[in-house]
Amino acid sequence: MPARAGRRQALSCGPLGDRATRVPLPPLPDSTPVARMAQTNPLPVPTGPWKITLYDQENFQGKRMEFTTSCANIMECSFDNIRSLKVDCGAWIGYEHTGFCGQQFTLERGEYPRWDAWSGSNAYHVERLMSFRPICSANHKESKITLFEKENFLGRQWEIGDDYPSLQAMGWANNEVGSMKVLCGAWACYQYPGYRGYQYILESDHHGGDYKHWREWGSHAQTFQIQSLRRIQQ
Amino acid sequence: MPARAGRRQALSCGPLGDRATRVPLPPLPDSTPVARMAQTNPLPVPTGPWKITLYDQENFQGKRMEFTTSCANIMECSFDNIRSLKVDCGAWIGYEHTGFCGQQFTLERGEYPRWDAWSGSNAYHVERLMSFRPICSANHKESKITLFEKENFLGRQWEIGDDYPSLQAMGWANNEVGSMKVLCGAWACYQYPGYRGYQYILESDHHGGDYKHWREWGSHAQTFQIQSLRRIQQ
Repeated sequence: MPARAGRRQALSCGPLGDRATRVPLPPLPDSTPVARMAQTNPLPVPTGPWKITLYDQENFQGKRMEFTTSCANIMECSFDNIRSLKVDCGAWIGYEHTGFCGQQFTLERGEYPRWDAWSGSNAYHVERLMSFRPICSANHKESKITLFEKENFLGRQWEIGDDYPSLQAMGWANNEVGSMKVLCGAWACYQYPGYRGYQYILESDHHGGDYKHWREWGSHAQTFQIQSLRRIQQ
Repeated sequence: MPARAGRRQALSCGPLGDRATRVPLPPLPDSTPVARMAQTNPLPVPTGPWKITLYDQENFQGKRMEFTTSCANIMECSFDNIRSLKVDCGAWIGYEHTGFCGQQFTLERGEYPRWDAWSGSNAYHVERLMSFRPICSANHKESKITLFEKENFLGRQWEIGDDYPSLQAMGWANNEVGSMKVLCGAWACYQYPGYRGYQYILESDHHGGDYKHWREWGSHAQTFQIQSLRRIQQ
């Protein structure tokens, strides 16, 4: 890992906290030159425990850049595409479109050599990842969510603190969840069993943890269908 | 649900236990006629808690058939393709090829309206599911596995009983696992973080729970790469 400058920067977790967040790297001997970004906030304030490294080619090749906080538009960092990435620290959420819109991708620590490592298996394939941000509330050890049968926190309810690859196997009546309250941590909810299909990332520090209708699950949500959900790991 | 005949049949969990397993259904008013299979073992022995319903069209349309145990070749049940399915009871493993070979798909209770609900997001897309069997040892509440850094149960080891969408976030040194011993339950291991990429299903009642090299993880395994793993839910 080459020496890097300017890592002590303000870290803000919200989608609007994209200031002074890009950490340029010197060119690597075995890599194409790294894009150099202006430092707009050189204040030596503590950084958070988040770090993600992006590449514009598959298998961690090509242009390379590290980030320690959110980015609303990768094209403003002279990236046309993100084709591989490594999450070095923390949990992140990636989005199909700029401005934190479109399909959501859970990005936990590890190596993602191609788009198919983070994207869902949906019929509507998404190879693009155009914006991203840290998931500050992710807490694998202490996560809690209440599921409600109907929208607006009505009907039968069930408080859970563990991962469930099949809600129906645990006694949930059907393939839908009407609304949810995130009490602790951050959760990834999925359209199909086994953590497949569309992902919806719900956080205790967004909307006050309240998600009273599928319209609040994300700009790509279109139905109440949720068949599995799990804690997100920091 | 129409009345069904012949559900009291021997249930065998191994890939070779495919006898008297197919449960034909009478035609449904709103469906194409159901293929009728011969009952080769009508003995009234107790059935297991497994049931899966297959359809040869997407969205639970077309030819329909229920199974309560394994099937080595769907074409022998006059299915050319499985295009949607519902897991009504128990956990199952689906395979890309006949004879329990090729990519593995974890099938837990719930609805799978298209192939992309069970298949991985891999570059090598698999729309086929040609054989399947129950996962008898799945036990969400009591599952335990030991990971070893190197093949043949050598190197550092780590015993876990919870799901880990990122092994590296929990302190595992790299993106590989050398060998594994399944002590209780059944586990799904994945190439990428967040339960993505190739799946390898490891069971306490197969190989004595011992998986000493990636060659034993499945006929599709080619590397030691594993970045997430989780319990399979019965």
